[in-house]
Amino acid sequence: MATLIDIGVAAAINILSAIAFLLAFGILRLQPFNDRVYFPKWYLKGVRSSPTSSGTLQKFVNLDVRSYLKFLGWMPAALRMPEPQLIEHAGLDSAVYLRIYLLGLKFFVPITLLAFAVLAPVNWTNDTLELESTKSPDLEFSDIDKLSISNIPTGSIKFWAPLVMAYIFTFWACYVLFKEYEIIASMRLHFLASAKRKPDQFTVLVRNVPPDPDESISELVEHFFLVNHPNHYLIHQVVYDANKLIKMVEKKKNMRNWLDYYQLKYERNPSISPTCKTGFWGLFGKKVDAIEYYTTEIDKICKEEVEERDKLKKNPKSIMPAAFVSFRTRWGAAVCAQTQQTRNPTLWLTEWSPEPRDVYWPNLAIPFVQLTVRRLIIAVLFFFLTFFFMIPIAFVQSLANIQGIEKAAPFLKPLVEVPIVKSFIQGFLPGIALKIFLIFLPTILMFMSKFEGLVSLSSLERRSASKYYLFLLVNVFLGSIIAGTAFQQLDTFIHQSVNEFPKTIGIAIPMKATFFITFVMIDGWAGIAGEILRLKPLIVYHLKNSFLVKTEKDREDAMDPGSIEFSSTEPKIQLYFLLGLVYAVVTPFLLPYLLVFFGLAFLVYRHQIINVYNQEYESAAAFWPDVHGRVITALIISQVVLLGLLSTKKAANSTPFLVALPVLTIWFHIFSKNRYEPAFHKNPLQEAMKKDTLEHTREPHLDIKAYLQNAYIHPVFKEVDDYMDISLVDGVEPESALVPTKRASQRNTPVPSKHNGSSTSSSSLLDVHEERS
Amino acid sequence: MATLIDIGVAAAINILSAIAFLLAFGILRLQPFNDRVYFPKWYLKGVRSSPTSSGTLQKFVNLDVRSYLKFLGWMPAALRMPEPQLIEHAGLDSAVYLRIYLLGLKFFVPITLLAFAVLAPVNWTNDTLELESTKSPDLEFSDIDKLSISNIPTGSIKFWAPLVMAYIFTFWACYVLFKEYEIIASMRLHFLASAKRKPDQFTVLVRNVPPDPDESISELVEHFFLVNHPNHYLIHQVVYDANKLIKMVEKKKNMRNWLDYYQLKYERNPSISPTCKTGFWGLFGKKVDAIEYYTTEIDKICKEEVEERDKLKKNPKSIMPAAFVSFRTRWGAAVCAQTQQTRNPTLWLTEWSPEPRDVYWPNLAIPFVQLTVRRLIIAVLFFFLTFFFMIPIAFVQSLANIQGIEKAAPFLKPLVEVPIVKSFIQGFLPGIALKIFLIFLPTILMFMSKFEGLVSLSSLERRSASKYYLFLLVNVFLGSIIAGTAFQQLDTFIHQSVNEFPKTIGIAIPMKATFFITFVMIDGWAGIAGEILRLKPLIVYHLKNSFLVKTEKDREDAMDPGSIEFSSTEPKIQLYFLLGLVYAVVTPFLLPYLLVFFGLAFLVYRHQIINVYNQEYESAAAFWPDVHGRVITALIISQVVLLGLLSTKKAANSTPFLVALPVLTIWFHIFSKNRYEPAFHKNPLQEAMKKDTLEHTREPHLDIKAYLQNAYIHPVFKEVDDYMDISLVDGVEPESALVPTKRASQRNTPVPSKHNGSSTSSSSLLDVHEERS
Repeated sequence: MATLIDIGVAAAINILSAIAFLLAFGILRLQPFNDRVYFPKWYLKGVRSSPTSSGTLQKFVNLDVRSYLKFLGWMPAALRMPEPQLIEHAGLDSAVYLRIYLLGLKFFVPITLLAFAVLAPVNWTNDTLELESTKSPDLEFSDIDKLSISNIPTGSIKFWAPLVMAYIFTFWACYVLFKEYEIIASMRLHFLASAKRKPDQFTVLVRNVPPDPDESISELVEHFFLVNHPNHYLIHQVVYDANKLIKMVEKKKNMRNWLDYYQLKYERNPSISPTCKTGFWGLFGKKVDAIEYYTTEIDKICKEEVEERDKLKKNPKSIMPAAFVSFRTRWGAAVCAQTQQTRNPTLWLTEWSPEPRDVYWPNLAIPFVQLTVRRLIIAVLFFFLTFFFMIPIAFVQSLANIQGIEKAAPFLKPLVEVPIVKSFIQGFLPGIALKIFLIFLPTILMFMSKFEGLVSLSSLERRSASKYYLFLLVNVFLGSIIAGTAFQQLDTFIHQSVNEFPKTIGIAIPMKATFFITFVMIDGWAGIAGEILRLKPLIVYHLKNSFLVKTEKDREDAMDPGSIEFSSTEPKIQLYFLLGLVYAVVTPFLLPYLLVFFGLAFLVYRHQIINVYNQEYESAAAFWPDVHGRVITALIISQVVLLGLLSTKKAANSTPFLVALPVLTIWFHIFSKNRYEPAFHKNPLQEAMKKDTLEHTREPHLDIKAYLQNAYIHPVFKEVDDYMDISLVDGVEPESALVPTKRASQRNTPVPSKHNGSSTSSSSLLDVHEERS
Repeated sequence: MATLIDIGVAAAINILSAIAFLLAFGILRLQPFNDRVYFPKWYLKGVRSSPTSSGTLQKFVNLDVRSYLKFLGWMPAALRMPEPQLIEHAGLDSAVYLRIYLLGLKFFVPITLLAFAVLAPVNWTNDTLELESTKSPDLEFSDIDKLSISNIPTGSIKFWAPLVMAYIFTFWACYVLFKEYEIIASMRLHFLASAKRKPDQFTVLVRNVPPDPDESISELVEHFFLVNHPNHYLIHQVVYDANKLIKMVEKKKNMRNWLDYYQLKYERNPSISPTCKTGFWGLFGKKVDAIEYYTTEIDKICKEEVEERDKLKKNPKSIMPAAFVSFRTRWGAAVCAQTQQTRNPTLWLTEWSPEPRDVYWPNLAIPFVQLTVRRLIIAVLFFFLTFFFMIPIAFVQSLANIQGIEKAAPFLKPLVEVPIVKSFIQGFLPGIALKIFLIFLPTILMFMSKFEGLVSLSSLERRSASKYYLFLLVNVFLGSIIAGTAFQQLDTFIHQSVNEFPKTIGIAIPMKATFFITFVMIDGWAGIAGEILRLKPLIVYHLKNSFLVKTEKDREDAMDPGSIEFSSTEPKIQLYFLLGLVYAVVTPFLLPYLLVFFGLAFLVYRHQIINVYNQEYESAAAFWPDVHGRVITALIISQVVLLGLLSTKKAANSTPFLVALPVLTIWFHIFSKNRYEPAFHKNPLQEAMKKDTLEHTREPHLDIKAYLQNAYIHPVFKEVDDYMDISLVDGVEPESALVPTKRASQRNTPVPSKHNGSSTSSSSLLDVHEERS
């Protein structure tokens, strides 16, 4: 077992690296040439633009010494923006996402105080471990273990302390969760109620339109809704199967990049006309003039694109059996989204339409039977992924044990026994091994979720997050505990049965405390500090900037603001919740490390959300029920583990008291689910009616049909049109002619601005604010 | 273990008692004075009435010898009525209920044939049991065991036969289930679509109306729906808290019975004026003239009732926060029932209204928070009921073991060792012990379900059925297997862990085959034969007839047609499904007994449904998803048991093949649930729109408001009014004056007949038929 010194070394290393990252960030962010890396959000908002005037050097390097003195100034700045303005600025999703970290602080600050006030003295004032170590000299223990529940003698009456604490912690957690659910449900409802007119409020996504020999999909949809929603139906938009067109657009984009690259090369050195080969990956084939080649190729694809687009629109087979149906009123849409249309529940499936930018187009056409088969396949695949991934992790984990290394490679013994190396190995290796595994995972899980056939990006992210959480639970949490123990207690463990499971984990949990403390430091502290440094986008941006960027627009395309990536970040937070809840009673010494993590993460992510991340969609915090459910899961796991631990400690008369806890927790979950979850799935008619009435009074002559006409057109059609414009009128930005505003980006802007005339940088945000409220 | 002779004796006893019951029924049903016991359904329909003319003796006893010769004629008669007519006659619930027995036959006839063709030879052609019995002479085995899977030697390749059979049986079961689900879903939809105008088509039950300081509940409901469903809302009816009134009506009913009794006594012997005591239970207090006393008491209560009723209607506090809201169109009601009304999902809860006769009034006012608490309480109580009930059963089970009895009471040994007594004990006792336990159970479970706060009788029955099934599963199925084994293998068993569970059951299952065969005979065969004899209603009717009956109306009240009692009968059928599926692979010898049960039960229940049972409500087969789900549960249990059994038989390489089975079965369940279950919960708008349009074209000037005005009035108000009429105009039947038809009963008539003029017995049913189709 690791000693306090090991932990101290690991903490020092991690704190130093975190501080180094923060320092580097503090300096880099002040350099104007990094502006688009560290403040892309403001560029997307149209509030900032590239510095054009002033000296050339000043354009790249910040020479103002005073600004370096307050290089930690971003921290208070990140906290300064009030929540309502944050919602305006970055959307409700982001604001609620930050509340997860806040929830962690709300959870664990009181729990830590109470645990250190009550449990630490109870655990410390025993000498079980000292007695045991005199009996069996092999057993090592540290001061951390003296603070843990392991130090209470078997059968002691002192076990009532952790038991009562488990109750108090559970009640506190449930109370905080319930309050938070209430707040977020009302934030969501308020957000939806105060949102201004958006196409998805009027629109329902209809899937599985049955084929009809006499009518086209479009006619069929129109007739069906004219008959069954006679007073409410307005228009509909069919969905085209544009996958071929998407490929063309991708190909053209790639070619344009090459063209830009060669043009820039030519400009810098006009003496040599750049050449390239036409074959596979530019390695084989005929040598041609690069600029000429790509220009003609792009022209060719442009024409093909237009042809393909026209063909799509004419060919009835390219219309998928799905449609976006819009209604005259929000009430009509709410009714249609919540009701079953026909007696066959697998046809004419209606659901509330996602935002246009949230739609995941390729999945719209998957029929019902295929969906269930796909789900089965993914469930089986995911099972195998989760359980066979464990083998390499278990192997690496076992190596991280000093004894394991010495046994496996005896010649390393002298090196490993050097105190600092030993501490380093014990503090660093296990966390890093896990980390490498985990980097590749979210992409695979997202692919699996896409295969399952969900139709919006937000639901895809939620689905991936669920999978990732399960994976982390099995592999990081259980895997670390059991595999580690398995190599220590191999003989006693392998032939154990399932109901011994909580016991085994219960025994292993206190022993794994140091491992998880180092895990929190590496994955948590250093990971968060690395997040704010944005090393990868920094490098990629500067590479692109030097090789590809010609115009302002190119520079904007080179900018990679990224996003929160809910699907991979949220499950990780949940892992910390799990660790905190499990160790709160067992080894309270872990809790302060978590508090640092939650505090730092809150700060960093608030800064990133304000300055960096681009909002890709707005789901109005639709992910909260998942977050809530996972915290409940963690709570139940912690209770079961404690049950197992106490039953091995011969505190058996406490079992009935502990069994009641998970029962009550599950009941609480059902209760809060019934109470608040409908707010995240359903659309109350009263709210819809209110907004309709208000709108009708304010704008009695509104032409809603024109407003909705083209709201749900496949983005690739728009893109084709855009590119057409660009290739025809090269160099002129078409959107600046259409929308006279400073907003320079088209990417994921929440709503097209209706302001005429230019607005200054500072007032623009406030204008949006007024407009929305 | 029991031998073939034991089974033979048990079978003989049970077959003889079943034949005796059937014979008794064959004779009793022909006697006219039993007519109201064996054919009450026809009286309720108004097709039959008491014989009035002809000779006095003939009125009571059937002297026509020829009719006795065809005393089994009821069997073909029961099968003769075609299903559509059966639906007209007894409702869709009854018709679909019968299909559960048919499903059993469809399941098990091919399975039995296949099992005897394939598994029986495979099992028989081994000598494992003979070899084992030579090794350990204690081990007894019978020819039944030679036919079971126990006879295959450990590790034999022959285990592929049961394995492949398990696959075939599962696929067959799923296929039949899927087809059946399809048929029943379409029957339900057709039934609903072809049903004529009924109040519940237009009505939605609204619960948890929030209190408002300024408005009464009634005004609040009206305003809310006028605002949020402006084009569709028609009227509403509030719900009164009439529990006090109900008690008064009960008390008066009881007093009327006593009055009738004393009046009859006085009529028979006019010389003595009957007296009674006014105190507790008529045992203490002052002696008074009975007739005078009860007459004045009844008058008093009648007046009190009217006062109470008027008070209820005036007092705003007696109005519960619930209402039946009716809409102009079925479309409007379908929309309101399926949507969420306000942002708080615990207020203004709307659901499709049950039929007026299906409403369970006392539960309408329970608020949301109380509901969840009540559910928690019942879940905990039910858990204790299920698991602590096992102790006495286990005790009785263990006694039923001959060795157990001899050990417990050695002096009984000579008696017990008499062959016929031994067979009797082994064949009879265990089944009867269970039976006695089970008789009292459904009432308790129904009480628990009522406490949970469901609002319709049909959902209460479904809920009770679920509980009863779980109870039977744990206590009868698992309890019989494990408790029995526990007393045999006590040492090896008690310290076993949870993952050994399937193995333990797997080992015990073949040993318990004879027990379950006798169980099928006693509970199944004799139980069904007892059902048709209706001994209890027979006795009660004749007792009432001699002591209370004065008028035709009294005689009708004395009649007890009973009903299917889904809540207790369906779980029992499910137990047979479970036994059949579990033993199909293990001991196919059990299957023929099941076939006899399903065949006989189908016949008997078809007869009872046609001639006896009164339909208390019509839920349009809403219970089918439950039935389907339970058969799937049985299927999965059978697969897990087989997995456990084979793993003990060292056929370990078969495990992966068997694990796939439950996964596929669960997937099938999810698939068929998604495909067909919505048909049982939701109300497709298309169907509603069709019916609306049709009705509007046919009857453009229909006054739907008048039609719905009083549809959902608490039945006790009607009853008070009825009694008022009776007490005012004694002896005259008020309804005969209002509705001039032969229909003599008011009890649970589906819809008031609109026929004017009398119809003859034979044509009346056909008329109803025409009217509906």
